[in-house]
Amino acid sequence: MAELRCDGALITHPPNVRYLTGFTGSNGILFLSPRSAVLFTDPRYELQAAEECDCRVRVVRGSTWEGVWKHLAGRFRHLGMEADRVSHDTWAHTAQRLGRGARLKPLQGLVEKLRRVKSEAEQEALRASAKVCSRAFEEAARLLRPEMSEREAAAEIEYRMRRLGADGPAFETIVAAGARAALPHARPGEALLGRGPVLVDMGACLGGYMSDMTRMLSFGPPSRQWQRLHQAVLEAQQAALAEVRAGAPARKVDAAARRALKSHGLDRFFTHSTGHGVGLEIHEGPRLGAKSDDVLEAGMAVTVEPGVYLAGTAGVRIEDTVLVTAAGAEILTPAAKEFMVLAS
Amino acid sequence: MAELRCDGALITHPPNVRYLTGFTGSNGILFLSPRSAVLFTDPRYELQAAEECDCRVRVVRGSTWEGVWKHLAGRFRHLGMEADRVSHDTWAHTAQRLGRGARLKPLQGLVEKLRRVKSEAEQEALRASAKVCSRAFEEAARLLRPEMSEREAAAEIEYRMRRLGADGPAFETIVAAGARAALPHARPGEALLGRGPVLVDMGACLGGYMSDMTRMLSFGPPSRQWQRLHQAVLEAQQAALAEVRAGAPARKVDAAARRALKSHGLDRFFTHSTGHGVGLEIHEGPRLGAKSDDVLEAGMAVTVEPGVYLAGTAGVRIEDTVLVTAAGAEILTPAAKEFMVLAS
Repeated sequence: MAELRCDGALITHPPNVRYLTGFTGSNGILFLSPRSAVLFTDPRYELQAAEECDCRVRVVRGSTWEGVWKHLAGRFRHLGMEADRVSHDTWAHTAQRLGRGARLKPLQGLVEKLRRVKSEAEQEALRASAKVCSRAFEEAARLLRPEMSEREAAAEIEYRMRRLGADGPAFETIVAAGARAALPHARPGEALLGRGPVLVDMGACLGGYMSDMTRMLSFGPPSRQWQRLHQAVLEAQQAALAEVRAGAPARKVDAAARRALKSHGLDRFFTHSTGHGVGLEIHEGPRLGAKSDDVLEAGMAVTVEPGVYLAGTAGVRIEDTVLVTAAGAEILTPAAKEFMVLAS
Repeated sequence: MAELRCDGALITHPPNVRYLTGFTGSNGILFLSPRSAVLFTDPRYELQAAEECDCRVRVVRGSTWEGVWKHLAGRFRHLGMEADRVSHDTWAHTAQRLGRGARLKPLQGLVEKLRRVKSEAEQEALRASAKVCSRAFEEAARLLRPEMSEREAAAEIEYRMRRLGADGPAFETIVAAGARAALPHARPGEALLGRGPVLVDMGACLGGYMSDMTRMLSFGPPSRQWQRLHQAVLEAQQAALAEVRAGAPARKVDAAARRALKSHGLDRFFTHSTGHGVGLEIHEGPRLGAKSDDVLEAGMAVTVEPGVYLAGTAGVRIEDTVLVTAAGAEILTPAAKEFMVLAS
């Protein structure tokens, strides 16, 4: 607080509230001061908040913000708030209700920075999430058939994750058949898987923690072109993984992937960054991109996911979720990275 | 624009952008002026935006907001923005980049108001979504067993919705067994369904449109107490439905449900409002509560969902998604509302 020159702070972004308090409900506003921590919520979450939180809980009937404003009025001069997370309306109302002489200060990703390095318990949660993801892929892959639609395949995959204990998918599962794999954010549709390659990008959410993994499969052996792309991306992914360790600049991981693709003349088809942090959110810090200033630390969890996309023709991506250690990368998603060839 | 005293407006809330343009991607900023409409997005969505939108599309490399700000700089004096949807950071940066003499004006739920009354095409989309929801419930219910966990039951339900064509669940499916049904927002956990009543609250998202339905089932005949609660809630739901028609004040629908529960001495256990609008979001206008000033109009889609919650003992809710017509309520969720009794 002293460092921030604040005498109080409000945390509202749900993953940040969960990180600091354990509260998993959808409506929680956390007030912090040097002397106290109070979670404000509504009557729906009365029992749950009491069970999940160590801090004081105040249950507000009616508007939760109204309860927060009453608590704050006239008592704080410099209040920190998540300017990038809270709506302008809420910011403006809070400023008004704080009273004259008081000022709001942006917190600038304060809790997000704390969240980058995972505790032992968080690392265990990530391992469990990635294991469910990996196993669900292996189970579901055996059930896929060329005459299934992308949507049906996604349903099978998400069902397996759920059955294995996931709260749900970490994001909308991507199943992209044939040339549709060239769209990095393809949504599974009515297109059939067909007798060719399929890209599957999936993740589990388990106990709040996300995993993220991409694999390629094919009904019958893939063509030479697809095999070449796959081989190049696999080399790029392994080159990137080899750079992951505590102390490494994140951009070196990205550069290694690009260098490997360049040796195949494919670097210009790699149109996104190499990876991102993962935890209570599917996208968080650090960023593994060419312009990133982040430095990897032991306990960070990141994806490593180079890809090449030839519009209208083909697309290949290979992705693991890994933990950064002093020695290197601990890969959390053990599913084999070869082109998985299924009977057509 | 004239009415708002704006010479331009930025729409950023994804369901609002989708409503106005058809664009379904996660990153779209819509600029409107009396003479033009431009959707700003990033290269991931280049093909998709061109396919989905009628308006002009501008693909921005790097920061999408940077592209928007460059487009606006110095050209607009009064720009409308969704103050309740956009972060304070984005609001403040936009104000700064607009230049001196320019002002931002809050749009106050402008697009949300337009979205309340559904077009014919939207009504068809809602019918299709509710049909998938209803049918998935009937299919999944037959597969449930007392020794399944709430989580496994939710997995079955969501899988059936997906198989029947849903993009996914409209929200995290609620499966609450026994006394856990007294928690209106119970999350499905490891508790077994057991040989008693189970509350299922589920919805499908299909073509972007949401449905919402709650039903009760039981392994073996429910106890007299549960049956009495169910009968009272069913009466309340039917009384509320009978008040739904174009021109009716929303609060009369709520009052009818409360009156029916009062006649059973149960009104104080009905701790939430009777319903909410539904469409591209699972919660939107109008509100069907005691303090609502909304008036129902033909083409609105709302939930009607009274419930009673006896902490630690029992909970019953019955919910339909309905369309408001001149004649009354068109019920979109046809699944039977009786206590569904399954073999134990």
